[in-house]
Amino acid sequence: MPRLVDPASRREQLAEAVWRVIRRDGLERASVRTVAREAGLSAGSLRHYFGTQTELLAFAMGLVVDRVQARVARHGPAADPRAAVETVLHELLPLDPDRRAETEVWLAFSGQALVDPVLRDLRARADGLLAAGYRRMLDWLAAGGQLAAGLDLDLEAERLGALVDGLAMHAAGQPSRVRPELVLATVRRHLDSLRPVPAR
Amino acid sequence: MPRLVDPASRREQLAEAVWRVIRRDGLERASVRTVAREAGLSAGSLRHYFGTQTELLAFAMGLVVDRVQARVARHGPAADPRAAVETVLHELLPLDPDRRAETEVWLAFSGQALVDPVLRDLRARADGLLAAGYRRMLDWLAAGGQLAAGLDLDLEAERLGALVDGLAMHAAGQPSRVRPELVLATVRRHLDSLRPVPAR
Repeated sequence: MPRLVDPASRREQLAEAVWRVIRRDGLERASVRTVAREAGLSAGSLRHYFGTQTELLAFAMGLVVDRVQARVARHGPAADPRAAVETVLHELLPLDPDRRAETEVWLAFSGQALVDPVLRDLRARADGLLAAGYRRMLDWLAAGGQLAAGLDLDLEAERLGALVDGLAMHAAGQPSRVRPELVLATVRRHLDSLRPVPAR
Repeated sequence: MPRLVDPASRREQLAEAVWRVIRRDGLERASVRTVAREAGLSAGSLRHYFGTQTELLAFAMGLVVDRVQARVARHGPAADPRAAVETVLHELLPLDPDRRAETEVWLAFSGQALVDPVLRDLRARADGLLAAGYRRMLDWLAAGGQLAAGLDLDLEAERLGALVDGLAMHAAGQPSRVRPELVLATVRRHLDSLRPVPAR
């Protein structure tokens, strides 16, 4: 174990080791012992950074949210709101190896969140952020004249959010059928369908 | 263990015990030992029906598909194709306790399918059935004059399928935000948006 590594970097390295174990062997294998081995540390050294497996998993799950948020935060309602919305949605979809890793890890954590209260709270916070984000993207479209009149925006936010999560699940679980081109075309088609003049 | 139970019923009972363990404690707890205990059998008796944990999990996952298929098979392109499509989609969504159980178990298996080849094959077969099913539902709508002209039906099938899977995930994971009413309204709105005359 190299010394003089700052604790924040070490924690991120350990979280990334959790991700690798989850993607290779499943979340149930992500014990303190196997993650320490994956990271080249002793279990004792790992416990210096995370007291329990729950703390370790919660941090690794939170890091997915942080990374996605950091990328999304770079985009705002630009000159072309439609392009801005597409760009943000692409950040949430497994369109390259990094985003595929995030999606797979996120799906594993989400499954576990159904039975683990700590992960469930983290998931609920992320879900709240996402729901607000989808609603905000619709506002960008509306401000840019890219949204049909008379839509129920809360309903549309849920429809968009469900579509993106379902696409992410399909692209991660059925990569040979749901390729990036199909994901991109589906997002494009959905945003087109929300326009004032129906582009069918 | 009561005698004279026919093997098919016993296997279904054991699969349901797997579901209960998954929903309560997570898939990683669904070992031969814990499932046998949940079903009130010895591990040796369970092994009379399923030689390995993988066989047990695969059967329990397949039973979700069988149950949904059996319910869906009761519906066909009725006099009112739009109503028929809504009815079939509702069978796939966690709108009551039985369907909620199926969704939760399915999400757990889908997560595990990312790292388990046997479950991945089962999942791929189910995904193929579903994709064909969504495509067929669009044909029903088209035959009933309920579908706009000029749509790319393969793209629309993926959009519909992703929406339904995303809604199922939201309703299972965020039950207080994504209630049955919101699920039903979102499905309705999506089918409306596919109509020849835009009902926005």
